[in-house]
Amino acid sequence: MESGPCSRPAEPRHCVSGRAGAGLAFPAFPLSAAGAEPGSRIGTVAAVLPAGGCGERMGVRTPKQFCRVLERPLISYTLQAMERVCWIKDIVVTVTGENMEAMRSIIQRYGHKRISLAEAGATRHRSIFNGLKALAEDQPGCELTRPEVVIIHDAVRPFVEEDILLRVVLAAKEHGAAGAIRPLVSTVVSPSADGHLDHSLDRAKHRASEMPQAFHFDVIYEAYQKCSDFDLEFGTECLQLALKYCHRKAKLVEGTPDLWKVTYKQDLCAAEAMIKEKISQEICVVVNTKDEESVGHLLEEVLRNELNCIKVTSTVLDRTSGDIENFIDQCYSFICVNVVSSESRETRKLLSILEESSLPLLYPVVVVLVHCFDFTVVPLAQKMENLVWIRELAKEAKGRNVLLSGVLLNHSQRLE
Amino acid sequence: MESGPCSRPAEPRHCVSGRAGAGLAFPAFPLSAAGAEPGSRIGTVAAVLPAGGCGERMGVRTPKQFCRVLERPLISYTLQAMERVCWIKDIVVTVTGENMEAMRSIIQRYGHKRISLAEAGATRHRSIFNGLKALAEDQPGCELTRPEVVIIHDAVRPFVEEDILLRVVLAAKEHGAAGAIRPLVSTVVSPSADGHLDHSLDRAKHRASEMPQAFHFDVIYEAYQKCSDFDLEFGTECLQLALKYCHRKAKLVEGTPDLWKVTYKQDLCAAEAMIKEKISQEICVVVNTKDEESVGHLLEEVLRNELNCIKVTSTVLDRTSGDIENFIDQCYSFICVNVVSSESRETRKLLSILEESSLPLLYPVVVVLVHCFDFTVVPLAQKMENLVWIRELAKEAKGRNVLLSGVLLNHSQRLE
Repeated sequence: MESGPCSRPAEPRHCVSGRAGAGLAFPAFPLSAAGAEPGSRIGTVAAVLPAGGCGERMGVRTPKQFCRVLERPLISYTLQAMERVCWIKDIVVTVTGENMEAMRSIIQRYGHKRISLAEAGATRHRSIFNGLKALAEDQPGCELTRPEVVIIHDAVRPFVEEDILLRVVLAAKEHGAAGAIRPLVSTVVSPSADGHLDHSLDRAKHRASEMPQAFHFDVIYEAYQKCSDFDLEFGTECLQLALKYCHRKAKLVEGTPDLWKVTYKQDLCAAEAMIKEKISQEICVVVNTKDEESVGHLLEEVLRNELNCIKVTSTVLDRTSGDIENFIDQCYSFICVNVVSSESRETRKLLSILEESSLPLLYPVVVVLVHCFDFTVVPLAQKMENLVWIRELAKEAKGRNVLLSGVLLNHSQRLE
Repeated sequence: MESGPCSRPAEPRHCVSGRAGAGLAFPAFPLSAAGAEPGSRIGTVAAVLPAGGCGERMGVRTPKQFCRVLERPLISYTLQAMERVCWIKDIVVTVTGENMEAMRSIIQRYGHKRISLAEAGATRHRSIFNGLKALAEDQPGCELTRPEVVIIHDAVRPFVEEDILLRVVLAAKEHGAAGAIRPLVSTVVSPSADGHLDHSLDRAKHRASEMPQAFHFDVIYEAYQKCSDFDLEFGTECLQLALKYCHRKAKLVEGTPDLWKVTYKQDLCAAEAMIKEKISQEICVVVNTKDEESVGHLLEEVLRNELNCIKVTSTVLDRTSGDIENFIDQCYSFICVNVVSSESRETRKLLSILEESSLPLLYPVVVVLVHCFDFTVVPLAQKMENLVWIRELAKEAKGRNVLLSGVLLNHSQRLE
């Protein structure tokens, strides 16, 4: 349990990267859409992420924000999406007492920054209120700065982009309150007390209220301070509180489909598939020669022609140059051609470069070793030997989130 | 283009199975929940599936009902879910003229039955109306029987279970109209003309209207005949038409999370993951000896202990008995231990049994061959030979939707 309303965990041991936006699989949306240099226009911005839910709709015991997607808790993806936005100064996550330690270890393990923890309340609104209190500066023991604008976002919407965050924040700055909306997927009906259709709502006149939302801090804090216990207990909509208690009609901002909320089991599957797709958009072919006629360069050309939607790059593995280091910030899939002859030293070198980077900390990194053998020359036993050490190396690497596999390519002189 | 309002395609070449409910991966929900022997209680039931949408929300050119999930068009899964319910007599699918041929070939290829096609209209309501006309018996050239109750379901909700279909049909029989509902995932808001929040709806008092829905045929047909062009053009809710034009207050039936509609790209990913999970619930270990001490039986025991959530069965591959045939209706994953010594005859036999069944027609079938070699006796060259013919066989089998792979297990006398 936390002693004060908020506490800042120790600086994480691992850091994703010193550079803004680096170490991220999903590059930030170009800000031109909102025509902004945001820092100068929006003042201090903080975010509150309620993460106290118990995930009963998911049908599993683990709260959905802590369910694992590609071995990493869902909330870590959402934190990554928020913290890469450099103009968000503080991110307050509200967590139940029993999950506080787990949350702290997630922050440490995945190197999240600018995160503070506050204790969740029994309902969503109470949790958000606790997060706001942590930012309000009028509470004892609080170390955070009262922001001008506060974003409220769900821990289970990991795909939020900088663009929509900025649009919502700018709208909030202008109107006091703003929130993302989406078209309704289903018609909404109002049942009568006996479970019959009373009336159905015109789909064209209604929208689904999604996250992120943003508010003048003073507006939403006042709304929470004024609102009734009934609101705190049964309400679900922050925009409604701002309207009811501060008479601010929130600006509604059309969002994109990726704002969707991980609610049911199938959504976890979808999240995993979407993340896999995003980290598979680039392949880097690693070769050990600059010779343009080499198998590696030929493979690169073939891949580039065959895989239209995927970016194919190449780099030369040369211990004296730093080429490979430049690639590992953008790419999670490597094909290494002819890196080794029949020993594992160069492969180990490559693996240690990858492991020293932050890459496998956040996503699994796939490395395919392609060994070309001239079958007229190299004896079978030597090939088998290669398979054996690749398998051993793969076992070790897997523990560090690098998925290594080997391909033996038999050819005679020219590639067949 | 169709000449009449409806047409029945030729009896499909492939049939999933002669037995009711056979050849299906998803066994029908036990009907006890509704306490029913449905046939006697519900009279004639037909279904209309509008499939004329263009899938613009999916962000891809292919209409979402024709998008492939595990290589099979999504709509085929929905048809499978409907046709396995033996008390649904006719299933009318409305398709645009340009997709009519594609739809016909899907029906033929995947052996769908009791399906008739009608031409879709320009909107959802017009498409449903065309489907109803095809069932109405008062149209020229129509071969279908006017049902007592008609189900309306979406082509893009493939996970519908018999239980909810039955509950909705029984409710419709009693009340004239009924539809499945689900809790709202997001709060619904009403925007003002200038894009600000006018008010938000109380989430506890509203529900999402989902599919399936069902109606007395006469009620919904009358509603469509009476309704305005505006309704046909801009309406989305069949329950609303029954209320407005026939004064039937639909019974609302709480549905399950699997009623969800494939709307966005992430939903396709989720559908694929859910189907994969469903067809991975059982593994059959195929052995070629009844000896309880054999590797195969040991493996079965290990798998049963390790994989708690998965059903592990075993069968003896014996050409004189029909054992294996009894398994192939329920299972999509096979591990064949020691089936072969060093030749491919028995594996080919197994593959042909699988391919002759309807199994790989509907889902990919996974076959793992485990070859145990005593490494002190069998020379390396022989093992490599095995790998070669397995690879060749795998190539052939893949074209028939059987995914074959081989594992060589080295041991000396006793398994290590």
